[in-house]
Amino acid sequence: MANNEDEKKEQIGITVKKDEDFSEWYTQLLQKAELIEYTEVSGCYVLRPRLYSIWEIAQNYFDNLIKKDGVTNAYFPLFIPESYLQREASHIKGFSPEVAWVTHAGQTKMAEKLAIRPTSETIMYPSYKKWIRSYKDLPLRINQWCNVVRWEFKNPVPLLRSREFLWQEGHTVFATKEGAWEEVLQILDFYADLFENLYAIPVLKGIKSEKEKFAGADATTSVETFLPSGKAIQGATSHLLGQNFAKAFDITYTDKDEKKKHAWQNSWGFSTRSLGMLIMFHSDDKGLVLPPRLASNKVVVVPIFFEKNKDVVLKKAKELVRQLEEFNPIFDNRDEYTPGWKYNEWELKGIPLRIEFGPRDLEKKQVMIVRRDNGKKEAVPFKDIKKKIPLLLEDMQKSLFNKAKKFLKDSTAETTSWKEIEKAIKDKKLVKTIWCEEAECEDLMKDRTDGAKILNMPFKQPDLKGEKCPQCGKPAKKQIYFAKSY
Amino acid sequence: MANNEDEKKEQIGITVKKDEDFSEWYTQLLQKAELIEYTEVSGCYVLRPRLYSIWEIAQNYFDNLIKKDGVTNAYFPLFIPESYLQREASHIKGFSPEVAWVTHAGQTKMAEKLAIRPTSETIMYPSYKKWIRSYKDLPLRINQWCNVVRWEFKNPVPLLRSREFLWQEGHTVFATKEGAWEEVLQILDFYADLFENLYAIPVLKGIKSEKEKFAGADATTSVETFLPSGKAIQGATSHLLGQNFAKAFDITYTDKDEKKKHAWQNSWGFSTRSLGMLIMFHSDDKGLVLPPRLASNKVVVVPIFFEKNKDVVLKKAKELVRQLEEFNPIFDNRDEYTPGWKYNEWELKGIPLRIEFGPRDLEKKQVMIVRRDNGKKEAVPFKDIKKKIPLLLEDMQKSLFNKAKKFLKDSTAETTSWKEIEKAIKDKKLVKTIWCEEAECEDLMKDRTDGAKILNMPFKQPDLKGEKCPQCGKPAKKQIYFAKSY
Repeated sequence: MANNEDEKKEQIGITVKKDEDFSEWYTQLLQKAELIEYTEVSGCYVLRPRLYSIWEIAQNYFDNLIKKDGVTNAYFPLFIPESYLQREASHIKGFSPEVAWVTHAGQTKMAEKLAIRPTSETIMYPSYKKWIRSYKDLPLRINQWCNVVRWEFKNPVPLLRSREFLWQEGHTVFATKEGAWEEVLQILDFYADLFENLYAIPVLKGIKSEKEKFAGADATTSVETFLPSGKAIQGATSHLLGQNFAKAFDITYTDKDEKKKHAWQNSWGFSTRSLGMLIMFHSDDKGLVLPPRLASNKVVVVPIFFEKNKDVVLKKAKELVRQLEEFNPIFDNRDEYTPGWKYNEWELKGIPLRIEFGPRDLEKKQVMIVRRDNGKKEAVPFKDIKKKIPLLLEDMQKSLFNKAKKFLKDSTAETTSWKEIEKAIKDKKLVKTIWCEEAECEDLMKDRTDGAKILNMPFKQPDLKGEKCPQCGKPAKKQIYFAKSY
Repeated sequence: MANNEDEKKEQIGITVKKDEDFSEWYTQLLQKAELIEYTEVSGCYVLRPRLYSIWEIAQNYFDNLIKKDGVTNAYFPLFIPESYLQREASHIKGFSPEVAWVTHAGQTKMAEKLAIRPTSETIMYPSYKKWIRSYKDLPLRINQWCNVVRWEFKNPVPLLRSREFLWQEGHTVFATKEGAWEEVLQILDFYADLFENLYAIPVLKGIKSEKEKFAGADATTSVETFLPSGKAIQGATSHLLGQNFAKAFDITYTDKDEKKKHAWQNSWGFSTRSLGMLIMFHSDDKGLVLPPRLASNKVVVVPIFFEKNKDVVLKKAKELVRQLEEFNPIFDNRDEYTPGWKYNEWELKGIPLRIEFGPRDLEKKQVMIVRRDNGKKEAVPFKDIKKKIPLLLEDMQKSLFNKAKKFLKDSTAETTSWKEIEKAIKDKKLVKTIWCEEAECEDLMKDRTDGAKILNMPFKQPDLKGEKCPQCGKPAKKQIYFAKSY
């Protein structure tokens, strides 16, 4: 029996360790936990129900945040005429290398080829031009949940770098730059809320360098984090588009002073990439670890029985499952697997709490509850279960976040010595340092570190009077986060 | 003042009557009520926030129905390799004329061109093949909410016939034909529930003729209805795919008897087309009429004031708006428009209840509530408002449905005389008649009526012994619904 059990365990479990072969660990986890399926189209993946349910919870959370703030949802076409995409010069430059083009319908060649949206500025704003006449029409704040396509030619990584992904994109219009900027920061706070309170992932808020900002924006703000793979990643962005698109698409309004003015615009988004960050951050050698708020099934009930006491154990287990309905429990009463097999399976799939329950527990009027994050096992009397579960779930949510915060702190090297920066990057650290704010120096920093880049610059900057840029020695102007990244 | 007011009314209102120029009425309504925006890409439309919010409510309702029934959501890629699409012969034949093809990414020509999904059978089922091994893996029941593209070359009609639309597509797998068929009917009941209880649209449930069934299915069931435009329309379909795709994609399972068997499959969907049906069915010459359950803003509060009593009226109005939060009220306190202008605007935009409130009402401690569907006006004391609104909303929901049922009944001609059938079709009626069940006769019926077709055949069939097919005189085999349709 034991051998057979071990053999099965090997088949379903992940066969490498997270800190030994991160990439293989991630690939196995995605497939064995039934999160992702590969398809024939390279870079396009199936988001399986266990993964998609996480996305649904995230969508719901963020959708509530923005709706309460006055944003409404809409849907704009998938297709963008080539001539639209070209209207804003730096925008097309940024996106054209990775646009997927539709050229034929049935057997017929199209008059103008159509881009599949890599982002929707250029298909939305011709409508915005029609809708906005007066300052009374502002602000206009619309969001859409949709799929976008960016045909990257680099190695695809499921969720982090895929050719089609799901996201929300908010596109808003204001009468003044101040109004627009206020929203940029408000939305960035929503993203930080989403990552920290739902995903249990701490993030670094800040503003991008000129080189790294969105193609067509005046400024890009972002939330960034650092993953156990040793690479940083951008979680979400909130852009001040300024008047660039308003000028390209002639979006004007008549102000109170009766003068025609160009509007100020923002756009902002987060995507299914966040699911990859989530999985990479918290999961372990046994499989998926989910912050409980993102788990649709919060508990699994595994009855333990032999033939002679099967009926009485199952009867009580069923009663329990009924009582725990609000936690959307999985009831694993399968005959053909041992409890050990079931434990492995539900650990792999990331159910936050396991409730074990056998004949001896029945006698003692208790169950054993096991936490997925730390394996801690606790006997809980029947009468306390419903009170205990929410406490355990909340504690797990908090403790995953605290662990993540500690990881981020431990992974950060703060230094102004170039030598130490180089070493830290080699050691797969996130570097907090300072910089002269010159693009040429930024390029050199990248070259000299084999590809590390500036993630963003904290909003609250220290006084850098007298400080020198570690790379070039010129006066330092900005504190920055610097790391290799996805 | 009055003249000015009339002039404005003309500008914002619909300038033709529904029963005089239906098509122009529909087009004006979609734009003036801010539901749809046209784009440069013919056949692709913007679903504006007021329309999209209806779709969100419908999604939520149906999503709950299927989730409670055990279906889970997932997301499959937008792109289908050409070779996949071709696997099931009748499927590709049905869809290939209207497939949009992606041939290039950036400047690079793709090795194999990719179809944008017109429906997702052929991109989902290769994954299903991998996931299904044993009878224990069945049933597999997955749904996705997504966009699909069918590049029709006929005249596009916003929502009813558009080149990109939003829908849900359920794709399920069963061990037996009986299990599959049971679900087909269950899902069809969900669609009937959705249309009747949410959209307030009565539907005819039935099974399609062989000619009209889905490309690749064994049988197609549908809910159909008849619109005030004088044309029938299919609201949703639930297909028994049989083993056609299972054979084409090699989806097999090992049964309890240890034998390998081909699985049985279903697919089913409804789309944003339903929003077009909704608008056409209930709306009137003044604009949009919404069944209250589909309205995100259920009431609008319009205070009536002059300069001398503005403060006191607005103060009370604000208090009222706060009290009515659960109905998501619009508070129209704009200074620059007259009450009459505001009434017109919110009638155009379909807010179910209007609450008017002026200085005389303040004295009497009451408001006037006006129903959008029938214009009935009622004085309601302050203390009763919160109790009265839900009653009025429910009554409006019911009364729209009853009116729609009466319309469907009055539009139906039941006859077995070919002459009467021809006349009824000319008179823009829905015909309930009988048929020999032969495809050749079906073609002739279509030809002789300038394009009318069989919508579906009721599940509960009468005894037709001795009856003759009106068109050909052969023995009649099926009762059918027959009409011109979208």
